[in-house]
Amino acid sequence: MRRWNGWAEEGSTAALSREALRLLELEVGRRIDNLPPDATLGEVLAVVPPSRLPADDRLSDDAEDRVRHGRGQSLPDWIALRSGLLGAVPDAVAHPATDDDVAALLALAAKAGATVIPYGGGSSVVGGVTPAEDDDGPTMTLALDRLAGLSDLDERSGLATFGAGTVGPDLEAALAPHGLTLGHFPQSFERSTLGGWVAARSVGQQSIGFGRIEALFAGGRVVAPAGTLDLPANPASAAGPDLRQLVLGSEGRLGVITRATVRTVPKPPREAFPAWFLPDWPHAIDAARDVARAGLPLSMLRASTPMETQSLLAMAGRSRAGDVLARYLRLRGMGPERSLVLVGASGLERFVEGAVREAGSILRRHGGVAVGGSIGRRWIATRFRSAELRDTLWDAGYAVDTVETAADWTRLPAIAASVGQALRHGLDDSGERVHAFSHLSHVYPDGSSLYATYVFRRSADPDETLARWRRLKRGASEAIVAGGGTISHQHGVGRDHLPYLAAEKGELGMAALADVARRFDPAGIMNPGVLVRPAE
Amino acid sequence: MRRWNGWAEEGSTAALSREALRLLELEVGRRIDNLPPDATLGEVLAVVPPSRLPADDRLSDDAEDRVRHGRGQSLPDWIALRSGLLGAVPDAVAHPATDDDVAALLALAAKAGATVIPYGGGSSVVGGVTPAEDDDGPTMTLALDRLAGLSDLDERSGLATFGAGTVGPDLEAALAPHGLTLGHFPQSFERSTLGGWVAARSVGQQSIGFGRIEALFAGGRVVAPAGTLDLPANPASAAGPDLRQLVLGSEGRLGVITRATVRTVPKPPREAFPAWFLPDWPHAIDAARDVARAGLPLSMLRASTPMETQSLLAMAGRSRAGDVLARYLRLRGMGPERSLVLVGASGLERFVEGAVREAGSILRRHGGVAVGGSIGRRWIATRFRSAELRDTLWDAGYAVDTVETAADWTRLPAIAASVGQALRHGLDDSGERVHAFSHLSHVYPDGSSLYATYVFRRSADPDETLARWRRLKRGASEAIVAGGGTISHQHGVGRDHLPYLAAEKGELGMAALADVARRFDPAGIMNPGVLVRPAE
Repeated sequence: MRRWNGWAEEGSTAALSREALRLLELEVGRRIDNLPPDATLGEVLAVVPPSRLPADDRLSDDAEDRVRHGRGQSLPDWIALRSGLLGAVPDAVAHPATDDDVAALLALAAKAGATVIPYGGGSSVVGGVTPAEDDDGPTMTLALDRLAGLSDLDERSGLATFGAGTVGPDLEAALAPHGLTLGHFPQSFERSTLGGWVAARSVGQQSIGFGRIEALFAGGRVVAPAGTLDLPANPASAAGPDLRQLVLGSEGRLGVITRATVRTVPKPPREAFPAWFLPDWPHAIDAARDVARAGLPLSMLRASTPMETQSLLAMAGRSRAGDVLARYLRLRGMGPERSLVLVGASGLERFVEGAVREAGSILRRHGGVAVGGSIGRRWIATRFRSAELRDTLWDAGYAVDTVETAADWTRLPAIAASVGQALRHGLDDSGERVHAFSHLSHVYPDGSSLYATYVFRRSADPDETLARWRRLKRGASEAIVAGGGTISHQHGVGRDHLPYLAAEKGELGMAALADVARRFDPAGIMNPGVLVRPAE
Repeated sequence: MRRWNGWAEEGSTAALSREALRLLELEVGRRIDNLPPDATLGEVLAVVPPSRLPADDRLSDDAEDRVRHGRGQSLPDWIALRSGLLGAVPDAVAHPATDDDVAALLALAAKAGATVIPYGGGSSVVGGVTPAEDDDGPTMTLALDRLAGLSDLDERSGLATFGAGTVGPDLEAALAPHGLTLGHFPQSFERSTLGGWVAARSVGQQSIGFGRIEALFAGGRVVAPAGTLDLPANPASAAGPDLRQLVLGSEGRLGVITRATVRTVPKPPREAFPAWFLPDWPHAIDAARDVARAGLPLSMLRASTPMETQSLLAMAGRSRAGDVLARYLRLRGMGPERSLVLVGASGLERFVEGAVREAGSILRRHGGVAVGGSIGRRWIATRFRSAELRDTLWDAGYAVDTVETAADWTRLPAIAASVGQALRHGLDDSGERVHAFSHLSHVYPDGSSLYATYVFRRSADPDETLARWRRLKRGASEAIVAGGGTISHQHGVGRDHLPYLAAEKGELGMAALADVARRFDPAGIMNPGVLVRPAE
């Protein structure tokens, strides 16, 4: 069972290597001495207020159910859960098992004057499933865990229909016996759900091969207060604007995505994840750009800043193989500014080999040195584990969060620099340092995403920790907007990114989104405060 | 100059081979004897009514300008132009040169109580640029020919910004010196415009390699009665619903697309278009499906029904090479049910060769026989010419039109059969026969488009010719809807497909589209009757 106040399983802890801890202490300082212990579940449950929703068989007002579905995985969510200063908690949780259940629950909520928060895996890092603090009425959270599983498979077309609450491993397990895969592997894969992927425009780590969720989501159903929208699963269409693209990224504002039909493909017979080191970050960016524009059948390309490269190697801990690698890189002239580039290819042997070879020749032109497959194998083996380090780091006295964006190749280097600057110096005023590093996580012919991780010391006062986060988040977000990047490449909008959304959607665009939300949800009960301002 | 009442250049005529004419006479009968001559431009201009718009420097009320921008390329448009029974004609044509001009013209139209039709290349085959017959007020057509040309090129990102009125050849010519291509080659390439591609969700013939217009359209500007929408060109985004996808397919209902930024790529160093023959249509469909699901880096796959295969060979005319091919195919056991499959690959030598080899081995497993590159080379050389046969066939006494759809691999064979049936027997009541054939033109892992061409005899009475078209179009469209296909894979909605749109968009979806149109255009002056019913 997932811990109620974090990401990792109850009782499990990802180990932090000595080298990583040392690096962190060097970068931001040792943990402070007087950190209070986290609140216990019992302490939190004791202060959950009584439900304001009428008693109903379909509603659970159990305090633990409400707490476990009351927050996502943003740092403010964590601070609330760990400090026990939980604030708003849903008044009840419902676990509908059918589309009709969902419709009836929406009607019940409307009658009770309640707002409704659809809840998939609860992995939102942008406040997508968090009740509003200032809402007067009750909140009903619809947990979709019972709307799960494969309901239809057309093997000839590769179209698979799942309940929206299906989590990643269950989805792939249902496809595997048919030799099929969706190939959608966000870092949250083990926790997040198909419906959540669609609602938040999720992106898998191998999306340049398998496609982003907007390419994989062929159709489905949205049950809304005003009725039901069925999206037929055609391979392509020129029949007017694409309504799927209104549902993708709708974050619960239009209604509840109850099922989705996805495009699956034969499981690729071969995958490879070779790694290279580039002399420095500018070379890594240029090389990534050239590889992305070369039209190669790749499934992934990640390029890490020198600081991320150093952090990754430190997290791997000291080992004989690591020492050999370090010596080899020094011999090949790679200094401390070296940048790790990880490439992925998935498909038929012929194309995987060809793609790796062509990518390699481009990377070598930029001074790249190939280091084989071991780093990639390790990355694949631990790619869903690394999120668990958040729990470990928290316990060690550090708060971790990420920001991400995407921009064209021309703007990207400046955005990467200004986001890094905003993070590293965001707490200068209070004398705190910030460890920040980033990577290009998804490359496109015209640009790339940028994913930045930042670590800072927790304060004994949770409000001060939250205030630090706010300053860092605001500084990084403003740097993104000023640089012309999108406010999110893969995490969505939620509550946290809403202030920055109009910069890219425009006034007319925001108004049109509000119109669509009003059409699906005339009374405005669906997840208010997320994506579209309630007043709009 | 394009002829005022057809597709081909003034004075040019594509030759119809003797074999093709013979096949046509066999299939539908000889042209009838008493066909009246087409109306002359002079005759048509003489009956153009005076403009109901106030005189203004910016408006041309020249009769020829109005007639030349008064119709698209649908068969009803042709019948109107050729018969001289033109019906509604725009009251004036404006040729704005800047975004500000467009905004001012929209304001002028609103003040004058006029409706506005944005006009790119005038190549709509679904009534997208045709004034409403029953409209009380005046109509202003905005021709975008002066809003053309490359205005910005970011070579590092491959992002190119063009005026919306840029036609295909000019767009590619502006990119060529930089070694770049958009790779968007719809059959209308030489006439149609970038803005029109976006507005109608156009698809290029090599879209499985280069991407449909929705993948190529990175951003742009819409000047609407309510204001301006700027869509930033980010490579990808999870920042809520994708507003680009509301503009794509908006068909002039939201406003005027004045500029578009597109994603260009290095011109592929190598292209190949090898051909195969499959024993029959079911084998061709199955083989196409298997190739489409194999994850090969192809840019195209087309599979023709036996009747289309026969028609294509007849149109090529008799030749020594054709005789040799026919003998070879007979020797290899290919009977009259043989289906032509044309494959395209574009990219680096290594991947083009690999894709062709892998596709070939799949096609051979389905009984395919390779016939080399000559058919493909001929196809590439004439791919924009074949539309000119419409003019030739009209002169020969025949009307031609097409319908198209897309569906998953499971539904596709039944839709292909029922559309063919509906077309071939659509005029049985009146004792007329119809020559109908089709091909899969764009394949996807989950399904394919289907493109059907139908030819029937014109009547001496243009209203009867139109009535025949209506019956055929309705029969085919109903077969598409009944089979679960989309009402258009690549032509758009316009006026002609509007009755079938709600079947796939749903009531809520149609209402949401109408809401968005109202937000951009509160008074409903933009292209009413297209895409969204005016009442909605």
